[in-house]
Amino acid sequence: MKDLNKLFYPESVAVIGASENILKWGSIIISNILDGGFEGKVFPVSTKNDIVYGRKASKTLKEIGEPVDLLIITTPANTVMGILRECVETGIKNVLIVSSGFSEAGEDGKSLENEMRDFALDNGINIIGPNTMGMANFKTKFLGMNPFVRLNPGGISLMAQSGNVGNQIMYWAEQQSIGMSKFVGSGNEAVLMCEDYLDYFNRDEDTSVIIMYIEGVDNGRSFMEAARRTTRRKPIVVLKGGRTDIGSKAAMSHTGSMAGSIRIFASAMEQSGVSLVETQAEMLTLASAFDAMPLPKGNRIGVVTLGGGWGVITADECEERGLVLPPLPGNVKDRLGQMLPSFWSKGNPVDLVGQPDPNLFRESIEAMISSDAYDAVILLGVINAFKTVLRFYSASVRLGKKSEINLDQLEHQLDRMQNVFLDDISKLMDTYDKPIYPVALISQTDQPIVYWPKENRKYGAMIFKTPEEAVSCLAKQYRYSQYLQRHGRE
Amino acid sequence: MKDLNKLFYPESVAVIGASENILKWGSIIISNILDGGFEGKVFPVSTKNDIVYGRKASKTLKEIGEPVDLLIITTPANTVMGILRECVETGIKNVLIVSSGFSEAGEDGKSLENEMRDFALDNGINIIGPNTMGMANFKTKFLGMNPFVRLNPGGISLMAQSGNVGNQIMYWAEQQSIGMSKFVGSGNEAVLMCEDYLDYFNRDEDTSVIIMYIEGVDNGRSFMEAARRTTRRKPIVVLKGGRTDIGSKAAMSHTGSMAGSIRIFASAMEQSGVSLVETQAEMLTLASAFDAMPLPKGNRIGVVTLGGGWGVITADECEERGLVLPPLPGNVKDRLGQMLPSFWSKGNPVDLVGQPDPNLFRESIEAMISSDAYDAVILLGVINAFKTVLRFYSASVRLGKKSEINLDQLEHQLDRMQNVFLDDISKLMDTYDKPIYPVALISQTDQPIVYWPKENRKYGAMIFKTPEEAVSCLAKQYRYSQYLQRHGRE
Repeated sequence: MKDLNKLFYPESVAVIGASENILKWGSIIISNILDGGFEGKVFPVSTKNDIVYGRKASKTLKEIGEPVDLLIITTPANTVMGILRECVETGIKNVLIVSSGFSEAGEDGKSLENEMRDFALDNGINIIGPNTMGMANFKTKFLGMNPFVRLNPGGISLMAQSGNVGNQIMYWAEQQSIGMSKFVGSGNEAVLMCEDYLDYFNRDEDTSVIIMYIEGVDNGRSFMEAARRTTRRKPIVVLKGGRTDIGSKAAMSHTGSMAGSIRIFASAMEQSGVSLVETQAEMLTLASAFDAMPLPKGNRIGVVTLGGGWGVITADECEERGLVLPPLPGNVKDRLGQMLPSFWSKGNPVDLVGQPDPNLFRESIEAMISSDAYDAVILLGVINAFKTVLRFYSASVRLGKKSEINLDQLEHQLDRMQNVFLDDISKLMDTYDKPIYPVALISQTDQPIVYWPKENRKYGAMIFKTPEEAVSCLAKQYRYSQYLQRHGRE
Repeated sequence: MKDLNKLFYPESVAVIGASENILKWGSIIISNILDGGFEGKVFPVSTKNDIVYGRKASKTLKEIGEPVDLLIITTPANTVMGILRECVETGIKNVLIVSSGFSEAGEDGKSLENEMRDFALDNGINIIGPNTMGMANFKTKFLGMNPFVRLNPGGISLMAQSGNVGNQIMYWAEQQSIGMSKFVGSGNEAVLMCEDYLDYFNRDEDTSVIIMYIEGVDNGRSFMEAARRTTRRKPIVVLKGGRTDIGSKAAMSHTGSMAGSIRIFASAMEQSGVSLVETQAEMLTLASAFDAMPLPKGNRIGVVTLGGGWGVITADECEERGLVLPPLPGNVKDRLGQMLPSFWSKGNPVDLVGQPDPNLFRESIEAMISSDAYDAVILLGVINAFKTVLRFYSASVRLGKKSEINLDQLEHQLDRMQNVFLDDISKLMDTYDKPIYPVALISQTDQPIVYWPKENRKYGAMIFKTPEEAVSCLAKQYRYSQYLQRHGRE
């Protein structure tokens, strides 16, 4: 297996084609690295510019005169072979090639790519790309890539065969405060292929969940073996592009890869314990759930809801995805009956009939999650319900009602109440080692998708936007859990 | 058919059980009406409180001494029959009952509901509910309901058999600046049933699209007939709760309705030209698309993309939903070839290989949308791509680059550029009467989902969050368009 540690944890980087023209790759990449907080050495290389963002640029690689862990090339395709020869002379072993104009651009590009690949293999040079938007390590704040996102360090590592797809996923991660470990856009995969990244992420201790956007795999067997080695240790989530004939054609003209039959691919992935998703958004949500929550050990679900309609929607989604809603055992029914109004539903879903009282919710959740009858609990409508109270209150103040507490204080109090509630959910997951899926009454798009407790606990509390999202995640986590039960966790 | 005009456009309203206790229905409803900007008369009625939000409360309905177009009841179930008798005495014909404790709460509640229904039918009283979160008219700013949302007037009217589902949908509409016409939570449907609301929305000139969350329909034939009458005039979008056995059971304990088989329901809906959706989020997006855009006349789709990966994902989604991506006709290829770099894809999807130049996009869209070969165009990755430029720029400024233009100015300029671009899309839809589906590079969650042009034009430009969302909408609009072609538009 290839040693990619220096590639993903470089301590010094050079950028060829460095410039201050903000729309050029040579500016985008180096300004992102310099502005992103990377603490290693950064060397601009340019034949045109003497100074780039306040740093003296070298004319050649030799001129740098210091070791370079990673070289990033942004100059045109026809400059690449010459630069690789300089790499051999200066001992550079890791190269990222942003430049396009290779196999994706026709026959000439294809032969250039072959020449480059042979040269790299002969000389032991690792190459990311060509035709990639770059790579990042969010722990060391090394952002050698296009999207100017500033993510917290987290457990999710992403490999994308399309830079734009990776781009969009990282922007979404930023919006939802999802932490990530690493990103790599694999580009044309002339040298390093998707299975190499998979093997690396498997061994990487900072990676707990791997997500991949894949259009095609050149060596299906070796990818599947890498996947099998990995899934016994950590979950892999894959979105496959090129699922259909026309999608495959589009993929061929994009990265030149053979997309292959989705049926064969899907069944091979399933046999390898990989979780397949249908959309980019689902990929990120499922990865966050794998990262933050315990796995459900079975498919028996308890539902607690603020209102009937959601209970119905959730029950439908559960049945459609192979989950069951067992009736309430006698002891759970008794425990709930002591708290709830006499006309409560007495069934699962437990309907709290419009009472967004966090204590009632907490007690109901614990009554179900502590019972042997349930493997997971879905919780509908209490998250962000506090926010509605703020609206009731501010309207009443506008209408002249006098009150001792001001709006800011109330908002602060309600936020605190909600955080205490989320904290309790994380605590319950720790105590019973079962997952709880809270769905927000009002999805707030600027809200972190995971509440991580301040105290040292294993699990964070997620906030799902819709019942469908929660159930879909739960069903896929359950499936992975079954895989581990059959094949053993490493 | 019932005349519900006064019910949906009341000029005077009384609220029984009015109070200033912000967590009680008697406060929630009246404070929402008073704070929402309603210009009609509002009469609080309370046996306990003399003054409610600065207004003198009457003890009884008679004491009001003026006509009441709509009465809202928030007091317990056992007070309702007495109040209805007062309605007969005072000539009140429209009543909304928030109170629960009727058929959803067991046998006693069931007989109370029957008694109430017979009394209402005998005396010609329209009743919304019981067990409802209320209703609203966003044009007259009459917000007789729980959610404190402030929506712009628009063409979408919503009926929900679950208040919480309606609640969540309206909060989402607010977040995305989606305008609505009316909302009604139908509750237990003791008197007014979902087909009555459907018939009313059909005739209502302020309603252009109808969306419904339905758990069960008591009289399937009459609902289907109402749907058929309506879909030849305006689209109906339905989300069905209780699609499965356990979902149906949950629905029965929720509203007491028989959910029925989803297969029969779905096929009946399809025969009636109704668009079925799977999720609440999809319901709102599809309704916005019906409201803002022309219908596609066929299924031949052109795709223009900033990057290959999205093109692949989009091609897959199209094929999976019965849409086709015809190759570029010679004249379109020539026109595009004059603008694009020599190594462009020369196929559909047209890949603009990372150049977010709005002029290039505009020209490419027009080349395709003006061609007889295409019925609709999907546009990937240019919307909000301007925002990434802002990040490049601000990093370069932080790194010491000098510039004449400040960040606010640049942001303003880029926003203006984007609005001009969206305006052009709306203009192209007007010119060619074909829909265009822009998908954002970075979905911004606080961004209005529809750009409505300032000039007087028929169509607004939508912004979709993902390729999947755009294609799913397109496929359903196409299906509705086929229905109209077969059955004729009225």
